[in-house]
Amino acid sequence: MLDFSLDEFAERLSKTRAAMERRGIDTLVVSDPANMLWLTGYDGWSFYVHQAVIVPPSGEPIWFGRGIDSPGATRTCYIGTENVVPYPDHYVHSLERHPMELLAKLLVERKLDNGVIGIEKDAYWFSAAAYESLMAGLPNAKFVDATVLVNWERIVKSPAEIAFMRKAARIVQLMHKRIYEKVEPGMRKCDLAAEIFDAAIRGTPEFGGDYPALVPLLPSGADAAACHLTWDDRPMRNNEGTFFEIAGVYRRYHCPMSRTVYLGKPSETFLNAEKMTSEGMEAGLAIAKPGATAEDIAIAFCDVLERYGIKKENRVGYSVGCAYPPDWGEHTMSLRRGDKTELQPGMTFHFMTGLWMEDWGFEMTETVLITETGMECLANVPRQLFVKN
Amino acid sequence: MLDFSLDEFAERLSKTRAAMERRGIDTLVVSDPANMLWLTGYDGWSFYVHQAVIVPPSGEPIWFGRGIDSPGATRTCYIGTENVVPYPDHYVHSLERHPMELLAKLLVERKLDNGVIGIEKDAYWFSAAAYESLMAGLPNAKFVDATVLVNWERIVKSPAEIAFMRKAARIVQLMHKRIYEKVEPGMRKCDLAAEIFDAAIRGTPEFGGDYPALVPLLPSGADAAACHLTWDDRPMRNNEGTFFEIAGVYRRYHCPMSRTVYLGKPSETFLNAEKMTSEGMEAGLAIAKPGATAEDIAIAFCDVLERYGIKKENRVGYSVGCAYPPDWGEHTMSLRRGDKTELQPGMTFHFMTGLWMEDWGFEMTETVLITETGMECLANVPRQLFVKN
Repeated sequence: MLDFSLDEFAERLSKTRAAMERRGIDTLVVSDPANMLWLTGYDGWSFYVHQAVIVPPSGEPIWFGRGIDSPGATRTCYIGTENVVPYPDHYVHSLERHPMELLAKLLVERKLDNGVIGIEKDAYWFSAAAYESLMAGLPNAKFVDATVLVNWERIVKSPAEIAFMRKAARIVQLMHKRIYEKVEPGMRKCDLAAEIFDAAIRGTPEFGGDYPALVPLLPSGADAAACHLTWDDRPMRNNEGTFFEIAGVYRRYHCPMSRTVYLGKPSETFLNAEKMTSEGMEAGLAIAKPGATAEDIAIAFCDVLERYGIKKENRVGYSVGCAYPPDWGEHTMSLRRGDKTELQPGMTFHFMTGLWMEDWGFEMTETVLITETGMECLANVPRQLFVKN
Repeated sequence: MLDFSLDEFAERLSKTRAAMERRGIDTLVVSDPANMLWLTGYDGWSFYVHQAVIVPPSGEPIWFGRGIDSPGATRTCYIGTENVVPYPDHYVHSLERHPMELLAKLLVERKLDNGVIGIEKDAYWFSAAAYESLMAGLPNAKFVDATVLVNWERIVKSPAEIAFMRKAARIVQLMHKRIYEKVEPGMRKCDLAAEIFDAAIRGTPEFGGDYPALVPLLPSGADAAACHLTWDDRPMRNNEGTFFEIAGVYRRYHCPMSRTVYLGKPSETFLNAEKMTSEGMEAGLAIAKPGATAEDIAIAFCDVLERYGIKKENRVGYSVGCAYPPDWGEHTMSLRRGDKTELQPGMTFHFMTGLWMEDWGFEMTETVLITETGMECLANVPRQLFVKN
């Protein structure tokens, strides 16, 4: 059932330990489920309760989680059952007991409580209460913030990971095809969202799709100014633009890609948005190669926009790979001014060139793989405003 | 665009303030997106960045969030634009800057920094880093833990909320209908998951569905022992049981309901599971009325199971209502020994009578509304093991 070879897991562990060593961390407590997956193979919808993967200085990682999830851990992880440690159910959503009390005990038992412990302080799943509980139970430990430590080790994808992302790319192509086939004035937006989910999860005849870390976003008209509203059941209307922010997903690996559809004869606004975004994206892609920085791509894109009189303040992309809700971004590299991350072969990012203006929105984006000599867009969907009359 | 009346929002705010007063809290910082929705109407997929609703001692709540999400806030909240406070984009996923620095400044500006501030310490979205950053910026405040303070105020549903849950119930009925129509040996599990999503989001001809806070879980055979594994693309097999843990959702309000389908001639194990669960559920429902406690229901169910030789350690239900990923549970009442919460008219809970055994799993569950005199199961799907030969 393992998606990656034991060698690959060993390599990931050793990269993580090297990063821990650079930061003086003896033991790492990993709460981000994408990091847990990447380190051990653990995959399950259990991140709504406290859980963790512990990376000790040597030996296998330890999975710590709710009792009813331990069968899922033994089924999906490569680690031995002695390192799958369940906690009892009355610790779930209790205000009297916190699962981190038991994690602290486990670390004491395994003699991992005397050194420097790295924690993901700003991970979604490591709450303020988890931190307090863990600290209280480990008086001899020194805690240091290791937020996104593992995420940074994930930034360059292995060939096996890239193969997964290529499958995700094939899925997102089918999703956009489905949208264009089905969308028409009068169709309820929820029915269109249902089509998108269906295409996403059905996948291809050779392989199925997985759930996305963000639900499809498909706002129309003035609602598209608000980039994170989800669908409703009102009908699609003529003479409106709708952007589709979606991702194909294969076994937790994402390939996001957005396109915009205009029903009717597109307004000047949308034709201009298409032109600007197209030129800006080409400018960014032209310099996307090993050695360039994240900032370089952002500046190239934003310079084009500025020539058209648009000042874009928000970031224009971010690293992507394996992910769980609520975000398919990897929380490492952002394409924005000030981010000097140097691009390397195997990096993958969502070039997120969205425009959210006062009363309209437009998205036409790509997921980009940095190659030895340049770049490659993973999915192949015509880079244009789609028009349906 | 508001889903509930201004009177209802005023009522919610006043209930929340009363709870704050009982706890000596002057100002509440709400991070749970379901609480943010309930208090203000704010609905958007933006909880992957830091955001909050502030409840000051008087006046309107304040929405605090990322700049690009503020148009979504003005569109969905009842509060005035002066109380929609955006933060700039370079605070997003940055290790140098934390949005809570700006929230602290806002509280100082609004003179809310000198009293007792309640925070949701164990909410998913209130990380250890958020807490440290907020504390550093508010040296004059005293912090107290207000985890699930608002959740508890949500436990009794208003008539308008119950109407939403009834719509969600109609959707989950259609989802189970779709499953039974479509499932057959040889069908890839991903294609069945796609059907479930399609039915969930399409909803009924009168109203569309919303995304669930948990993806559909539909493990088969021995995989069903691991209750939170998600689907893959292997074919459904004859002579296997599959449980379907799903919810209908209408505008964030959930009606979860699980059923199990057996392909082929059901084994004794499954027939017994059906019998035990049925009897246990009837025992629990028979005493579900105002005045009974959460524990009473759990004990009634578990007593039946014990007569059949099964000891169930995990909880058998939890309060449900509006929710966002990763959990449709409300994190208040749990149906388990020790939970003395008294049932009241308007409470709604998922009676989660799942059995996850060593090499099989079975679920047949109901979402229950407590009425003035007893209870009502919100969705209507025959309470049985579904068999398809």
